[in-house]
Amino acid sequence: MFARGGAANAVDDRSWLAAMLDVEAALARVCARHDLCPAEAAEAITDATADVSRFDIDAMGREAGQTGTPVLALVRALRVAVGDVYAPYVHLGATSQDIVDTAAMLVSRRALEPILADAGLAADACATLAIEHRETVMVGRTLLQPALPTTFGLRVAGWMVGLDETRATLRAVREHALAVQMGGGVGTLAAFGDKGLAIAADLAAELELPEPTLPWHTIRNRPAALAGALGAMSGVLSKIAGDVVLMTQGEVGELREGGGAGRGASSAMPQKRNPVAAVMATACGRRVPGLVAGLLGAMAQELERAAGAWQSEAATLSELLRVVGAQVAWVRDLLENLDVDVERMRANVEAAGDLLMAESVVTALTPHVGLVQARSLVDRAVARVKEGDVTLGQALRTNVDVVDALGADGIDAALAPDEYLGVSGELIDRALAAHRATAV
Amino acid sequence: MFARGGAANAVDDRSWLAAMLDVEAALARVCARHDLCPAEAAEAITDATADVSRFDIDAMGREAGQTGTPVLALVRALRVAVGDVYAPYVHLGATSQDIVDTAAMLVSRRALEPILADAGLAADACATLAIEHRETVMVGRTLLQPALPTTFGLRVAGWMVGLDETRATLRAVREHALAVQMGGGVGTLAAFGDKGLAIAADLAAELELPEPTLPWHTIRNRPAALAGALGAMSGVLSKIAGDVVLMTQGEVGELREGGGAGRGASSAMPQKRNPVAAVMATACGRRVPGLVAGLLGAMAQELERAAGAWQSEAATLSELLRVVGAQVAWVRDLLENLDVDVERMRANVEAAGDLLMAESVVTALTPHVGLVQARSLVDRAVARVKEGDVTLGQALRTNVDVVDALGADGIDAALAPDEYLGVSGELIDRALAAHRATAV
Amino acid sequence: MFARGGAANAVDDRSWLAAMLDVEAALARVCARHDLCPAEAAEAITDATADVSRFDIDAMGREAGQTGTPVLALVRALRVAVGDVYAPYVHLGATSQDIVDTAAMLVSRRALEPILADAGLAADACATLAIEHRETVMVGRTLLQPALPTTFGLRVAGWMVGLDETRATLRAVREHALAVQMGGGVGTLAAFGDKGLAIAADLAAELELPEPTLPWHTIRNRPAALAGALGAMSGVLSKIAGDVVLMTQGEVGELREGGGAGRGASSAMPQKRNPVAAVMATACGRRVPGLVAGLLGAMAQELERAAGAWQSEAATLSELLRVVGAQVAWVRDLLENLDVDVERMRANVEAAGDLLMAESVVTALTPHVGLVQARSLVDRAVARVKEGDVTLGQALRTNVDVVDALGADGIDAALAPDEYLGVSGELIDRALAAHRATAV
Amino acid sequence: MFARGGAANAVDDRSWLAAMLDVEAALARVCARHDLCPAEAAEAITDATADVSRFDIDAMGREAGQTGTPVLALVRALRVAVGDVYAPYVHLGATSQDIVDTAAMLVSRRALEPILADAGLAADACATLAIEHRETVMVGRTLLQPALPTTFGLRVAGWMVGLDETRATLRAVREHALAVQMGGGVGTLAAFGDKGLAIAADLAAELELPEPTLPWHTIRNRPAALAGALGAMSGVLSKIAGDVVLMTQGEVGELREGGGAGRGASSAMPQKRNPVAAVMATACGRRVPGLVAGLLGAMAQELERAAGAWQSEAATLSELLRVVGAQVAWVRDLLENLDVDVERMRANVEAAGDLLMAESVVTALTPHVGLVQARSLVDRAVARVKEGDVTLGQALRTNVDVVDALGADGIDAALAPDEYLGVSGELIDRALAAHRATAV
Repeated sequence: MFARGGAANAVDDRSWLAAMLDVEAALARVCARHDLCPAEAAEAITDATADVSRFDIDAMGREAGQTGTPVLALVRALRVAVGDVYAPYVHLGATSQDIVDTAAMLVSRRALEPILADAGLAADACATLAIEHRETVMVGRTLLQPALPTTFGLRVAGWMVGLDETRATLRAVREHALAVQMGGGVGTLAAFGDKGLAIAADLAAELELPEPTLPWHTIRNRPAALAGALGAMSGVLSKIAGDVVLMTQGEVGELREGGGAGRGASSAMPQKRNPVAAVMATACGRRVPGLVAGLLGAMAQELERAAGAWQSEAATLSELLRVVGAQVAWVRDLLENLDVDVERMRANVEAAGDLLMAESVVTALTPHVGLVQARSLVDRAVARVKEGDVTLGQALRTNVDVVDALGADGIDAALAPDEYLGVSGELIDRALAAHRATAV
Repeated sequence: MFARGGAANAVDDRSWLAAMLDVEAALARVCARHDLCPAEAAEAITDATADVSRFDIDAMGREAGQTGTPVLALVRALRVAVGDVYAPYVHLGATSQDIVDTAAMLVSRRALEPILADAGLAADACATLAIEHRETVMVGRTLLQPALPTTFGLRVAGWMVGLDETRATLRAVREHALAVQMGGGVGTLAAFGDKGLAIAADLAAELELPEPTLPWHTIRNRPAALAGALGAMSGVLSKIAGDVVLMTQGEVGELREGGGAGRGASSAMPQKRNPVAAVMATACGRRVPGLVAGLLGAMAQELERAAGAWQSEAATLSELLRVVGAQVAWVRDLLENLDVDVERMRANVEAAGDLLMAESVVTALTPHVGLVQARSLVDRAVARVKEGDVTLGQALRTNVDVVDALGADGIDAALAPDEYLGVSGELIDRALAAHRATAV
Repeated sequence: MFARGGAANAVDDRSWLAAMLDVEAALARVCARHDLCPAEAAEAITDATADVSRFDIDAMGREAGQTGTPVLALVRALRVAVGDVYAPYVHLGATSQDIVDTAAMLVSRRALEPILADAGLAADACATLAIEHRETVMVGRTLLQPALPTTFGLRVAGWMVGLDETRATLRAVREHALAVQMGGGVGTLAAFGDKGLAIAADLAAELELPEPTLPWHTIRNRPAALAGALGAMSGVLSKIAGDVVLMTQGEVGELREGGGAGRGASSAMPQKRNPVAAVMATACGRRVPGLVAGLLGAMAQELERAAGAWQSEAATLSELLRVVGAQVAWVRDLLENLDVDVERMRANVEAAGDLLMAESVVTALTPHVGLVQARSLVDRAVARVKEGDVTLGQALRTNVDVVDALGADGIDAALAPDEYLGVSGELIDRALAAHRATAV
Repeated sequence: MFARGGAANAVDDRSWLAAMLDVEAALARVCARHDLCPAEAAEAITDATADVSRFDIDAMGREAGQTGTPVLALVRALRVAVGDVYAPYVHLGATSQDIVDTAAMLVSRRALEPILADAGLAADACATLAIEHRETVMVGRTLLQPALPTTFGLRVAGWMVGLDETRATLRAVREHALAVQMGGGVGTLAAFGDKGLAIAADLAAELELPEPTLPWHTIRNRPAALAGALGAMSGVLSKIAGDVVLMTQGEVGELREGGGAGRGASSAMPQKRNPVAAVMATACGRRVPGLVAGLLGAMAQELERAAGAWQSEAATLSELLRVVGAQVAWVRDLLENLDVDVERMRANVEAAGDLLMAESVVTALTPHVGLVQARSLVDRAVARVKEGDVTLGQALRTNVDVVDALGADGIDAALAPDEYLGVSGELIDRALAAHRATAV
């Protein structure tokens, strides 16, 4: 009920059918080139596969539900479609798994297009935010507790780096792991006589897929690599969404989701504006590790074709692509429409109090009195804060040694969150440079 | 593409919509009973929900893909359907989660019907096989190695007990865990004033669901219990299917799947008859643990409504019910159409050789020569077998001590697989008695 | 490095060894009772198993790392320990799996003791908090957004119900699912001749474990039931811990973890007081669903003994018990030492503003003007609040229709969070009654 | 109880402690280089960390069990070890997570050494087998049913390619993903003033780890990449082990595990020789997907440090490395000691019958009579085989059209399994060439 993102279409039954037909057609063309079937047969098969709507997908699904494979019904339907003369040239030398596995690679490649596009736009949105909020000071929180000042720009730069690095991995998987599978019944390509290698190579070229060293029918590191790369990207997306959920909390209020009117409405409470995109992206993300585990667990495939593990892959792979596709679409939407409340970020820094700056004062004092003494002075001041109503600033300003070392201005500077941001700016710049390099 | 079993229909979008409408209608009737809405409004709402096809499920799905919840669209559509006068009485006092959670319980209960029915018939089929093959001797295999003789009846009785015990658990979950969820916005039922408890109780009664101690909107042991019970049943189904795959191997050949003509055909190799049902049941089973883990992992739901974990449940739950439903349908089909090759079982016992009976000879000798000596005699005979071409029987018959103790007939008896089946018959009877008790 | 809770000891190598020895000793005593071994042998075996420290656990572990089973080394060591005369009576009629599976049940039962005890004390701590905070008003939050008022008592009552219900399930599993496994090589108990049933029954009685209908060596719903019950309890514990993490956030500040000095310190930031118990309980909880999935996935066990799936269980089961044991210990600690900041809860209600009460005003107006008009009036008032600087109270008080219907006092009452808590008190009482019933 | 493989030592508590000490020492040296601490302090710290046995690891573990982090105890112990003067220079500018995360990378790198070494030797063993059995004909089995002839060499070449490709991925992860983590409290490196970037870079160099674009404290694609790569390798190992289990079955008998005397013994049945290494490798492999899912699920880490997800990683990562380490050690052992029964492979081909060759006859007939007629002739012959007692050869030799087309010799050739191996030899050569390239 919750389809979202372009990947959903790319993995539906119709797209699987189209991909399987594409493989059958490419195979016929390659066979024709090697004189294993007449050119007219290849043409007829190619023509017949061009229009998916000619095939009764529901009937084929029902038959697959009986026979356990979609290929029997597909080959029969395709033979009917091309007529008796060309029928024998359909599915030449291939086994069901060749068609399904190669189709799975086509389906995956097509589903990766919107996924990578959305991920790229999400990273671009991060870049825009990181530039804009390079100096936007906010509370850095560890274990959800106020810890030290940071900038929203640095937080977002982290999101961007995560997206950029997992995009790079996913792109590499798309280029190298999504290989053609062509092995015939048991991987020897025997039905092609001595032409097996040439046909497998040509089929790869015809479909613009890489050619593997060996048929990979029961060696499943290729789907596993895809699953792992999707899982890693999903984890980054979940991190982003989770941060947004936390930052939109009523008591924090640093972010709000934008988006159209009505977005985030509640069926019961009219005042609410829920972080829908972040919530839905989180929901998607929670389903991903189990799906990845499903594909990894299916790698132990018996002998020349598995009795169950292989048959479990297609549904899991489709779901994985669909769910990550929806997740990245939500996160892109989220990032492109994010309202950042800079004042609230500042207010939260103030509210957190100057204890946030204890480490800063040590750093400031060290050049003057040495690290040992610096720590000792600050520890004593912190202890006073914890005992009573005094702030850290007050405790420091009434300590002669501290005042001698830093002066009033120095104390103020050491307590200024904006002055204790370390190399956050340089880090953002570095992340942006890396991001720009991904666009090439 | 592989829908099979009645549960698939019970969890599709249309069935979810019907269940949500059922909850809204029941809520309206209960509110009318408590004078919170006019009886005519309740009637109008009930009428409007009676026909799911009045609602544009695709449009609602698209909207849910934008808003992250199906309930907003549903409430709006239902209000349109009942007209302006009764519109305000739709969704009275409820929050989205009340509708979705209670609908999930209805969907689950409905999906469990075919699942439990198929599981019961599968167990019945086991009972028939166990009775028929109470004395059918076969090789017992541990780590897939020949170990000792057993009977096919005992193997099948084990399958049956597994089915019966997990059916009992799943039935108990259906009776007790699938409770109504009614809490309003945050679980206080505040919109009902002081009538909250009565309304929740009446809603439970109206839908024939148990009433929980508290609204369980963020305490998720109920879906977890359902998931666990489905997972356990699936594990038993996978065990059965796995055994069948192994026993249908060419080199073992003890079982063959029956079923209609064309079942088990190959797209490439015309001579094949694949164990399709067992393979597909195995494929289904592999997907289940990850789905159960998904529901367990979603139990950590924040405060009064989760921001992601809850929203991830419905898809996972639907898939879990669908997949276990398909699995149990395959296994029932498998068991109801199983060809048992008793001769091949016997032939495999012969082929395994009489080393299979070493433990039997120790047991036979012990009353005559004591355990220590019995073991020593057999160990020496086994060593001779391993050294050369002699069988265990030959080694024993040429040992004076053994012949003295058992006589030629006694040796023959000790080497007879049919005589070394322990209490397999009594165990089968016990399992059958337990099975009959489940039918009451 | 992070052992915590009594379950850790119960599942360590030493405890597994002790449990296996207990099974061997009980088996010897039962065999003696049935005249299969001399009483002195049973006595000697019992004596030899009494002191685990006599066995070189490291050497046995190394051997298990070579042979893949701990039982070979154990049987050999035990035979050495009892001397040549009694050695043959060690491990009579059993197979390795009988020993390991039955030991697993003993280990589980022992590990469940501290787990159930800690869970019970955690639920008791909830009961205390629920009673104390039955009227403590706080912001109810859905999707982490302020939604409606609720009470801390009701939140905690939900935690308690979750603990109580999953405790009940886990207790039932302990009573019924942890059965003896005794089947001999392939489940026929053939080595005991016609005494198999009696011996299995007596072994169950000797170890105070239930007797199953059949040996369950490859029918694994028993470990699965245990895993599911632990997973469900863990999910409730994670929910509690997650809520505490959120409520201890700097900007929320409604809870603080108590516990000894130094608890929650940071290695870098001296001002921090981290919610350590909640964080660690969350960390534990994250590992559980994967472990449960591991045990469910291992249910597909081949023929008479699995070739891998069974061997994977012990480590996963131990880890599951250890991790849930640590988690429940952290949560108990957390709940028994929780600082509740009632003032901060109140302050957060105030800060959330009176929009929180929109639903309350509808409820109040309805008896006076009908639901349709009530909703319309409130919707308009909410719209004004969203447009400008006015509060909901101000908007209502300047609306003649509202003032006519409710009067100034009525408006105040409708805006009072304390007056809009529905049946939260009754729900708490119901939960407490159910809790008290668990103690019987 | 089942430790095996070098990775187990690399991930134990002692190794984690050593790695954390290495990070602290390297940090001190880098700080000294940047004049943030005296050279003598860095020297003292380096000296103090050199000997792990100086630290009371059990006490530190107990403290970690209380505080939820090992770093507090470690820093305190290290400060004691270096004495009061140098104590303040311990842990300069770092936060606990910097130490744990960087230590995790060191631990991982060290654990990958034996894993990659064993995987390389396993692949080498495959290469040897593939060369030796390049022409060893065996039954190719799909869904565990006899399908077509293949060679054992091709099967093993598939194993080898799987190992080689996942080794390459894992090596790339080791080189690029295992980066230093140095960010200070919230990732700004503020405690180092303007020297943060330089110090992070130098720390990376000092530990020979890559430097990341940004601190990755809550962006977890690095551990995820490691998990994914280990999961993929484990899947290949499980495939190999599963094949061996199936091929060692009594009724198949094509392989036997070698290894020392006593390997594969049974506690009850003296005649057994169990495929222990394959079984244990399978057992290890079953645990891996859940662990990978655990690390992927832990990627959603909150804000500047996660409250639970991060804390769950170390145990899961250690277990993952340990389990994959044990698995690869078992598989290497298995492959280096595999007894291949070439005669049994040949006998199984004979036993499978000449229906195995149906596709071969079609291929042979096609040049003579065209594909349509070839298929028709063979289909009719297969139908005759299925009807009665005739073999495929007999059916073909009594068909005039077939005899005309192929002659008696041609029929014999078409029925010869050795002549229908397609490009298996070329594929093996290609795989071996790729394998040799991995050694460079």
